[in-house]
Amino acid sequence: MSILVDLSIFPIGKGESVSPYVARALKVVRQSGLPHKLGPMGTTIEGEWDEVMATVRACFDALREDCSRVYLNLKMDYRKMPSGRIDAKMASVSSKLD
Amino acid sequence: MSILVDLSIFPIGKGESVSPYVARALKVVRQSGLPHKLGPMGTTIEGEWDEVMATVRACFDALREDCSRVYLNLKMDYRKMPSGRIDAKMASVSSKLD
Amino acid sequence: MSILVDLSIFPIGKGESVSPYVARALKVVRQSGLPHKLGPMGTTIEGEWDEVMATVRACFDALREDCSRVYLNLKMDYRKMPSGRIDAKMASVSSKLD
Amino acid sequence: MSILVDLSIFPIGKGESVSPYVARALKVVRQSGLPHKLGPMGTTIEGEWDEVMATVRACFDALREDCSRVYLNLKMDYRKMPSGRIDAKMASVSSKLD
Repeated sequence: MSILVDLSIFPIGKGESVSPYVARALKVVRQSGLPHKLGPMGTTIEGEWDEVMATVRACFDALREDCSRVYLNLKMDYRKMPSGRIDAKMASVSSKLD
Repeated sequence: MSILVDLSIFPIGKGESVSPYVARALKVVRQSGLPHKLGPMGTTIEGEWDEVMATVRACFDALREDCSRVYLNLKMDYRKMPSGRIDAKMASVSSKLD
Repeated sequence: MSILVDLSIFPIGKGESVSPYVARALKVVRQSGLPHKLGPMGTTIEGEWDEVMATVRACFDALREDCSRVYLNLKMDYRKMPSGRIDAKMASVSSKLD
Repeated sequence: MSILVDLSIFPIGKGESVSPYVARALKVVRQSGLPHKLGPMGTTIEGEWDEVMATVRACFDALREDCSRVYLNLKMDYRKMPSGRIDAKMASVSSKLD
């Protein structure tokens, strides 16, 4: 099973610059040990449902400590095939470009 | 704690019309007993993290039975305040319209 | 052609409560005259690409006046069929529930 | 003005594998000449509203040619500051990691 989750998470009401909070969430993702890829608008994580969602929850908990409003956006793509799609998907698209 | 989740979930590769699958997911949401609101582009569910996410997972499992690719989109708005926001948020916006 | 757009738009850096800004955007949607439906997590608008996107742009411009950071989330569902899906989609799902 | 748009676009009803369509959209993005970054779950594009949205529209038109249902997901982050954030945002987060 391969689940890819693109996660954006940030507080509302903590000022215009939210990068300290995004960094805090990214640390949680790193500590999960799951394959992930940081992007300009979100971080993609790959894994089984339970481990990915536990990581999303841990990011949320890390922000909730001192944020009374948190916004989260998540896109998930599940496919019944072996994992490793975090790189394979981009390779598949790129190979079709020429 | 109030968590609102707007959920869109559908299969890719099951033809152009996906309403039977959306109905299947909506049944799961109904059975959860959580406050929810069906919209044209997603269903909003309110509750605690664990119960909302267990419901999202149950929707996913219901589709995964016979769908080998599933796409899911989720927006979450957490606010440190009593629940009941599924209606209160719209009322708050509407009251500011005139 | 039927395009349904679910739009969420709000400022970051204007405090925790953003309903005055959401109300401002909703006023713009109303003034567009397009069929729309307010939900707890977004507003769905139906129309042709140009008119829907001009409305989204007008919402953005209304916030940009005094907001130096704006976040926008948009889901679009295009289908090559007559318009009127803002209600028909929900009816189609509901009819499959029992 | 800096607008970052993360775009996901794919057909529904064209089978489980949609990479040929994603590649088609990515070609359109490349031809726009705008700074962009391909990710596993979407492509981020930077520019002014009009040029970014014209590109999103061109991607849509490219798919609409032979797809009777198209799903599109867009996250936008506008900030009143000079462009170049497609890389600067990730650098800002990464610098806060240690």
